[in-house]
Amino acid sequence: MALTFRLDTASTPGPPQTNHSIGGSRSIGSPRAGLLSTPHGDVPTPAFMPVATQGTVKTLSSHDVRDLGANILLSNTYHLYLRPGIDLIESLGGLHSFMGWDGPILTDSGGYQAFSLGALIKLTDEGVAFRSHIDGSRHLFTPEKTIEYQQRLGVDIMMCLDQLVPANSDESALRDAMDRTHRWAARCRQAWSSPNQALFGIVQGGVSPTLREASAQFITGLDFPGCAVGGLAVGENKAQMYETVALMDNLLPKDRPRYLMGVGSPEDLVECVARGMDLFDCALPTRVARNGALFIPTGRVDITSARFQSINNPLMEGCDCFACCNFPAAYLHHLFKAKEILGLRLATIHNLRFVLRLMAQMRSHILDGTFNAFARDFLARYKPTNEAVRMAQKVRWLSRRHED
Amino acid sequence: MALTFRLDTASTPGPPQTNHSIGGSRSIGSPRAGLLSTPHGDVPTPAFMPVATQGTVKTLSSHDVRDLGANILLSNTYHLYLRPGIDLIESLGGLHSFMGWDGPILTDSGGYQAFSLGALIKLTDEGVAFRSHIDGSRHLFTPEKTIEYQQRLGVDIMMCLDQLVPANSDESALRDAMDRTHRWAARCRQAWSSPNQALFGIVQGGVSPTLREASAQFITGLDFPGCAVGGLAVGENKAQMYETVALMDNLLPKDRPRYLMGVGSPEDLVECVARGMDLFDCALPTRVARNGALFIPTGRVDITSARFQSINNPLMEGCDCFACCNFPAAYLHHLFKAKEILGLRLATIHNLRFVLRLMAQMRSHILDGTFNAFARDFLARYKPTNEAVRMAQKVRWLSRRHED
Repeated sequence: MALTFRLDTASTPGPPQTNHSIGGSRSIGSPRAGLLSTPHGDVPTPAFMPVATQGTVKTLSSHDVRDLGANILLSNTYHLYLRPGIDLIESLGGLHSFMGWDGPILTDSGGYQAFSLGALIKLTDEGVAFRSHIDGSRHLFTPEKTIEYQQRLGVDIMMCLDQLVPANSDESALRDAMDRTHRWAARCRQAWSSPNQALFGIVQGGVSPTLREASAQFITGLDFPGCAVGGLAVGENKAQMYETVALMDNLLPKDRPRYLMGVGSPEDLVECVARGMDLFDCALPTRVARNGALFIPTGRVDITSARFQSINNPLMEGCDCFACCNFPAAYLHHLFKAKEILGLRLATIHNLRFVLRLMAQMRSHILDGTFNAFARDFLARYKPTNEAVRMAQKVRWLSRRHED
Repeated sequence: MALTFRLDTASTPGPPQTNHSIGGSRSIGSPRAGLLSTPHGDVPTPAFMPVATQGTVKTLSSHDVRDLGANILLSNTYHLYLRPGIDLIESLGGLHSFMGWDGPILTDSGGYQAFSLGALIKLTDEGVAFRSHIDGSRHLFTPEKTIEYQQRLGVDIMMCLDQLVPANSDESALRDAMDRTHRWAARCRQAWSSPNQALFGIVQGGVSPTLREASAQFITGLDFPGCAVGGLAVGENKAQMYETVALMDNLLPKDRPRYLMGVGSPEDLVECVARGMDLFDCALPTRVARNGALFIPTGRVDITSARFQSINNPLMEGCDCFACCNFPAAYLHHLFKAKEILGLRLATIHNLRFVLRLMAQMRSHILDGTFNAFARDFLARYKPTNEAVRMAQKVRWLSRRHED
């Protein structure tokens, strides 16, 4: 059996879901604690998957990532296909061996890159035709090929090829993308032939409850061992995202793992664990770390700010990460000002540890029945990045980057 | 007592020194094994000091460097003075605490930067006037100030301010630089007031035996607890360098540590340990690592070369470094092609471990009386970079870089 999922919390239906933050006095949904078992080991959930786009979580080795408390990694079929190539990784014994990671790996199919690469891409029912961002060469990802590639990489959890559009696109664009995602999901399901690898379906439909309901029904009907919520965190506001996630909590089968793709920030992780999601991935914690934005209990701080120049205490008191345990904040500040690579690494270590510790804390509080208090306390203190700033940053980043 | 040095080998005078490589059948000089004791711990010699120019060995934390087997680090007064500043580091408890390194630290005084920064610098008897490479601001390093700065950094071994010129400059330029170095050495000696820190003198004189003899006599006369050989590895050829080092072996006191500044490459380390040197520093192993040039027993290889693309074995069989123990060469190749920061780190780890292991092996063979055979065997296999290529690279690098 490729994958089993055991739910450790009774899935008691929560009070009516809300699109507002749970930070106030409002009631919370139905957070779940579980255990995902794969051929490469167990993953206690809720779990965050660090993003190893090109076979490395940027600045870190697989051993570093393990030491940070990660139990599962995400990598990208699109990037690995282009460089170093599926044939090569397969001939070297698969992705686990290539990157020195013996735990579970989930791969994205390339659907997100088809969205973020924009102009380089042409989508038809056949699949995603694209030009390599490395050398301009032409390629075609069909649903069948993306499954073949993921099977040959030897990963534990594969994703269906899906079509992503901005979550608040008009209804007809959302519907077209959803319908194509459904046709591709059926073809992926058909192409899946390896019993030791699991395949997750992806629900699309943007922020439309009607479409989400239809998509959940269709994807659930294909009986995948796990279900992902795609098409969020791509331009909608947070209230819309939380509302859609809450809806998905009610629509997805309780006995299968739910993976919320591309989330998240610390506050989103708390809000969406509260709404019954189990798995998460996002490049944000590591990407902003390399820009000097570090997580502390009150929000993000900019380590390059002059106020850290002479701080002889750790960046975050009580943090158990390698950076906070060993260096004063002034040293991190210096490394960033001096453009030293070690700064990028220590910042990455801090942010990932912050997020991974948060996941473990949430799991523990779910099991103890104290999640609501923990989540409210966390959200009351943690001040998210201003939404307008955040969305502007996202747009800028999407137009500039396709690395992770 | 700031520093003691115990020689573990009887300093039997070797056969006549030669300027040729010891790789052939020729006899070898008088390699030494010893133990340097400092307030921050012991350093078995011969020893290589990784270069932490700005308070970090590029890509590594102090803990990484310790894990690689380094017992002493070098950092740069010039760089730390400009950023983050001596006041700041002092207020944070000194350089050890700032960078999280509890072992011995030696600092360069800034003499080398006065050489490598060239146009930004004006030298007078008063000292080195320079413009910051960061913001163009004006500064003056006098001999007295460089000692004050090093004392305030709290390092274990300080270096005198010296004047460096290309080793094969004409005799009068060499003599002027040497004379100034001597005047500055006396002023540094006078300014040195901290009993818990050692100060090393620096012998100059380029490749002129006459000047080297005069300089050794002058510097030795000031009774420093250690002596450095400066002004080599700055443009002369290898035969000239080895000849000068051999001469220094005969001129320097046997009971004090000898530090050959700015060396080395693996072959130079072997050749100069053979000629009685105890301490070494060089940015080369880490700098070339970041360019993908990795040390193996037969010489340097370029990890970006296509021949490593599908190698499923470690880069170097039998290497005990983290990179070779955990990843196939193909993964290192991929990281470099994909411009992943982890590649720079793994390459740095490999090259530093190669050099640090080489030092430990040499020490062990010196103590066993088997150094000659070991050195001949190493040099017979290790093919140095072509000299013309090497010197062209050095010129190019000096014109471009002043970071380390």
